[in-house]
Amino acid sequence: METSSRPLDTLNKARDKKVIVELKNGKQIRGILRAFDIHINVTLDGAEEYQDSELKRKLGPAFIRGDTIILISPSE
Amino acid sequence: METSSRPLDTLNKARDKKVIVELKNGKQIRGILRAFDIHINVTLDGAEEYQDSELKRKLGPAFIRGDTIILISPSE
Amino acid sequence: METSSRPLDTLNKARDKKVIVELKNGKQIRGILRAFDIHINVTLDGAEEYQDSELKRKLGPAFIRGDTIILISPSE
Amino acid sequence: METSSRPLDTLNKARDKKVIVELKNGKQIRGILRAFDIHINVTLDGAEEYQDSELKRKLGPAFIRGDTIILISPSE
Amino acid sequence: METSSRPLDTLNKARDKKVIVELKNGKQIRGILRAFDIHINVTLDGAEEYQDSELKRKLGPAFIRGDTIILISPSE
Amino acid sequence: METSSRPLDTLNKARDKKVIVELKNGKQIRGILRAFDIHINVTLDGAEEYQDSELKRKLGPAFIRGDTIILISPSE
Amino acid sequence: METSSRPLDTLNKARDKKVIVELKNGKQIRGILRAFDIHINVTLDGAEEYQDSELKRKLGPAFIRGDTIILISPSE
Repeated sequence: METSSRPLDTLNKARDKKVIVELKNGKQIRGILRAFDIHINVTLDGAEEYQDSELKRKLGPAFIRGDTIILISPSE
Repeated sequence: METSSRPLDTLNKARDKKVIVELKNGKQIRGILRAFDIHINVTLDGAEEYQDSELKRKLGPAFIRGDTIILISPSE
Repeated sequence: METSSRPLDTLNKARDKKVIVELKNGKQIRGILRAFDIHINVTLDGAEEYQDSELKRKLGPAFIRGDTIILISPSE
Repeated sequence: METSSRPLDTLNKARDKKVIVELKNGKQIRGILRAFDIHINVTLDGAEEYQDSELKRKLGPAFIRGDTIILISPSE
Repeated sequence: METSSRPLDTLNKARDKKVIVELKNGKQIRGILRAFDIHINVTLDGAEEYQDSELKRKLGPAFIRGDTIILISPSE
Repeated sequence: METSSRPLDTLNKARDKKVIVELKNGKQIRGILRAFDIHINVTLDGAEEYQDSELKRKLGPAFIRGDTIILISPSE
Repeated sequence: METSSRPLDTLNKARDKKVIVELKNGKQIRGILRAFDIHINVTLDGAEEYQDSELKRKLGPAFIRGDTIILISPSE
């Protein structure tokens, strides 16, 4: 990830890649980032819910409301 | 769910299908997604409230305020 | 409640009918839905406050601020 | 309180009457409703603070910020 | 405080008088109300912080962010 | 601090002076107020973090997001 | 960091430098500040999550939503 002027450019580079979405309730959703908007609402494909690094549930596609998100990071 | 550019397109594909709505208070509402708006206010038909995978209440039709929602996912 | 394109249409159909309003503080207000606006501020007639299915208080008419509401559902 | 189309109309009818204002912190403020605005900021005259139905403090006139309010109801 | 149509008119009458500002964190700030804006940001002179009616700290002039305020009331 | 009509005028007088910034998480940041905007985002120089009047950390320059701030007060 | 009139100017000077981002959930993210916007959404490179000064996780690039941030400070 090289220098870019806007944070949403960074999200754009993660599109169609695996990401970890950290939620304010302490859970993590992992999946393929398919879409996002300026509110940081995102949609993932193949979403899986983790808590304390443990897989809790397979969600499949998922729409996540932006105001519940702490951070989004590409996963290896 | 193939690649789409906006998260609300994803919600649109789930219209008239069964979804799970995760709420910030730890509960889940399951039902048929009938409508949503840009605030992610949604209406469900045949809504049922779950907590810890246990059915708590049958609500029938329900209007859910968007700012209480964590995520929306199609259910099998 | 048949398919409609906007969540507020759904609320509109519940006007002048008995509804349950779930609040973020864990309480329920039941009453006749008289009015609502785009913030989901609502007014009820004959409002009664419940906690854990137990009647706590009779309020009569009540104005409820939208940002305290989780969901609104018609009651039988 | 008969049918009206907007929640603020309902508040308007309560002007200059005794109301109970429920706050998110679990307290109640009772007093004469003198003014309100679209944010549901309100001013009361003869305001008194209650907790668990017990009078805690006499405030006299009081300005209450709208985002701390759960509901407003006329009191007998 | 006689009838006025807007809550901010009420605050305006309290300008340059002693007020109690109740905060969401359970503390009270007392002082002379010098200024306020539409967000209910306020500035006080001679501000003093109280908790449970006990003086905790003398702050002198203080700028208080509106979204931390529950209510503002003239003090005797 | 004499009478002024807007709270931000008050902050402006504190520019380049030592201030205490009270945060919603119970901590205090002390430092020289260098800049602020209408969201009450502020930047301090020589910022130091205190908890219960005890110095916890030296931060140097710091940008503080406005919505985490309770109050800002000049310090002696 | 010399006097500047706007807080975002301060963030701009920290671009491409190591920063500490304090989050509302009590964690710290450290990394190279690459981008930010008016909501204080930020992107970091080489992000690492700390809790109580202990390295918890290496995140690599990370997008952090602005409303979860308390403060941003250059790190040595």
